[in-house]
Amino acid sequence: MKEISGGITSVKGIKATGIHCGIKRSKSDLALIVSEPLAVAAGVFTTNRLKAAPVIVSMEHIKSERVKGIIANSGNANACTGRAGYKDSKEIVKLIAKELKTSPKSILIASTGKIGVPLPIDKIKKNIPLLVKSLSNSGGKKAAEAILTTDTVIKETAIEYNYNNKAIRIGGIAKGSGMIFPKMATMLSFITTDVSIKDELLKKALKRSVDKSFNMISVDGDTSTNDTVICMANGLAGNKLIDKAGGGFQLFQEALDFITLDLAKKIVGDGEGATKFIEIKVKGAKSKGDAKRVASFVANSNLVKTAFFGEQANWGRILSAAGSAGVDLDFGSISLYLNDCKIIERGIVLYKESHDLEEVLKEKEIKILLNIGKGGKEETAWTTDLSYEYIKINAEYMS
Amino acid sequence: MKEISGGITSVKGIKATGIHCGIKRSKSDLALIVSEPLAVAAGVFTTNRLKAAPVIVSMEHIKSERVKGIIANSGNANACTGRAGYKDSKEIVKLIAKELKTSPKSILIASTGKIGVPLPIDKIKKNIPLLVKSLSNSGGKKAAEAILTTDTVIKETAIEYNYNNKAIRIGGIAKGSGMIFPKMATMLSFITTDVSIKDELLKKALKRSVDKSFNMISVDGDTSTNDTVICMANGLAGNKLIDKAGGGFQLFQEALDFITLDLAKKIVGDGEGATKFIEIKVKGAKSKGDAKRVASFVANSNLVKTAFFGEQANWGRILSAAGSAGVDLDFGSISLYLNDCKIIERGIVLYKESHDLEEVLKEKEIKILLNIGKGGKEETAWTTDLSYEYIKINAEYMS
Repeated sequence: MKEISGGITSVKGIKATGIHCGIKRSKSDLALIVSEPLAVAAGVFTTNRLKAAPVIVSMEHIKSERVKGIIANSGNANACTGRAGYKDSKEIVKLIAKELKTSPKSILIASTGKIGVPLPIDKIKKNIPLLVKSLSNSGGKKAAEAILTTDTVIKETAIEYNYNNKAIRIGGIAKGSGMIFPKMATMLSFITTDVSIKDELLKKALKRSVDKSFNMISVDGDTSTNDTVICMANGLAGNKLIDKAGGGFQLFQEALDFITLDLAKKIVGDGEGATKFIEIKVKGAKSKGDAKRVASFVANSNLVKTAFFGEQANWGRILSAAGSAGVDLDFGSISLYLNDCKIIERGIVLYKESHDLEEVLKEKEIKILLNIGKGGKEETAWTTDLSYEYIKINAEYMS
Repeated sequence: MKEISGGITSVKGIKATGIHCGIKRSKSDLALIVSEPLAVAAGVFTTNRLKAAPVIVSMEHIKSERVKGIIANSGNANACTGRAGYKDSKEIVKLIAKELKTSPKSILIASTGKIGVPLPIDKIKKNIPLLVKSLSNSGGKKAAEAILTTDTVIKETAIEYNYNNKAIRIGGIAKGSGMIFPKMATMLSFITTDVSIKDELLKKALKRSVDKSFNMISVDGDTSTNDTVICMANGLAGNKLIDKAGGGFQLFQEALDFITLDLAKKIVGDGEGATKFIEIKVKGAKSKGDAKRVASFVANSNLVKTAFFGEQANWGRILSAAGSAGVDLDFGSISLYLNDCKIIERGIVLYKESHDLEEVLKEKEIKILLNIGKGGKEETAWTTDLSYEYIKINAEYMS
């Protein structure tokens, strides 16, 4: 498995583009990703009960046997826009399908940006011919750019691995989210691959990957109305169809895991106002679920986040957050490390306000290792600190 | 029912005090509340799995038939201090009991402050004689002061009402908590009353009261290791013993509800760095549980909080937070008001960037009314905005 350049368009048969259609003042705001031939597709969508119109449309269309492409806009989430918003998403999909000479059901759609504002659909409509015309097999980066909101950098990744004597490629793009959890609205990620895989196995693999990556950074339950992860697989790699669990599937799962985790970490790294990248590994849990819950509670604690922003040795906040997760804990069984600095060893507090810990806290990357001493399962979550800049961005952001 | 002055010591048979014993540099840090005669008592304690030592001790002692008093310190939470911390809490209780000529089991204890640091027990021990000597029937305010951490004002309240031709008094003090949820550690509240009530009914009443007040401001699941609410009832009012549900119990419940809600709101009003006091009323829910869950998710959303700090008309964030609560919602059934300003009426967005809404957002108190149009139940939660000052306090606070 090796990293390659080109993002989503490194994959055979994938073209993409991003243009400015006018939803945003000057930045790129409309992306299109297309596969030739049609691809099997899998999607993971927000669990928010007020799903945005494009999410509802994509959830319907992904039931199709084959998918042609994805259109996505930034600057407006088309969420909380009711019946009119749904019609707008349907209309866009129809127009794109016509231009691409495919069925509307084969087009997926995503939006991100402000909630509750009617989608300026005319701006999108009149740019559809240009959008389609500008598709290119090196346009991945442009698509990655057009889906950003407050992100400061584009997020793309791609890898190639071999299976069945064929080179298989997977590429992905993503847009972040405020402070780990979807901000205005939305974490989006679009993944393309030329692997030949059965529909149901692609769905299974994507669900698993998302659970270990994007779902470990969306840690606060504040799921947005628009969260969408889509993976399209067009089979052009020519490998023997992966149609059952086993070697080929396992290899693909690992490769897909790499892509989703890489993108998830890039989202955290570009978290709003973030000055620290914090990994929380919880070990010694009775179950994966327990480990995940504890890790998520720590990752989601404003007190933990502000302590790291302040570079404070306030490790009690980590334990307090862990203890609030509803998972059985005993102080006497707990061990805690920050990077290489031992804080607690099986309930014995070893921490003194040492020079070591002070140095660790100044680092940009902090690894928290919390062993709760109850079993053999572990999970990892990622988060950032909570800074003045986060407040500034979120108190002032309107568009 | 009328408000009276005097806080917890407005109640017959209650003495209290607060002194400086040296855990904090100069501020008052040790409180004692005593009832003569012994009182029946009820307690509600943190659900955090890493309960602080004083919580464990109080949970044991509150099983006693009668309680003499409560000792509480601020500046150190005696949490995550293991076996040694437990011994320290037991030791303090023993010494106070000896000084008060009562059984150790009749003494409850609470602590708040930094986690994971050994309690400076010698400072407490050598001040116990002074503490007991300074007890007075006007010392409520001193006790209220001695339990504060980053609170900027003391929080006390008291009322009197009549039942069975007797004047019954209830008084309470509380200390807050960062930004609604317990900060370093802990929301504490101690309530005294001279009502004559059966033990089990007092427990029932307190549980109910806390669920509607303190539990509606601790909205983020980030329950501290030290949260403690205790109510002592010594019977000196001389009313006919309240020993069953009915008129007398109902009246007492209402009075207690007033006390806990008043203190809960005072905690919110003094939230760290808060510039706004935000009430979230959720109506039209199928169940109380649904209403509570939606209200709590809105109250706990950093995005909602920062939007109010920025005085932005970013109402989509309220809906997004509501939608993430896991409660069935349809946009078409939702109505939303901010103070008197109508934003959405049954799925129709009426909001325009109006002068009205701009004015509402400048107000210090904001009432959010969210009708989800699914049923007849409602619940209310309270929160604050999320400001630069919050980050400052929590990034710099160490003691």
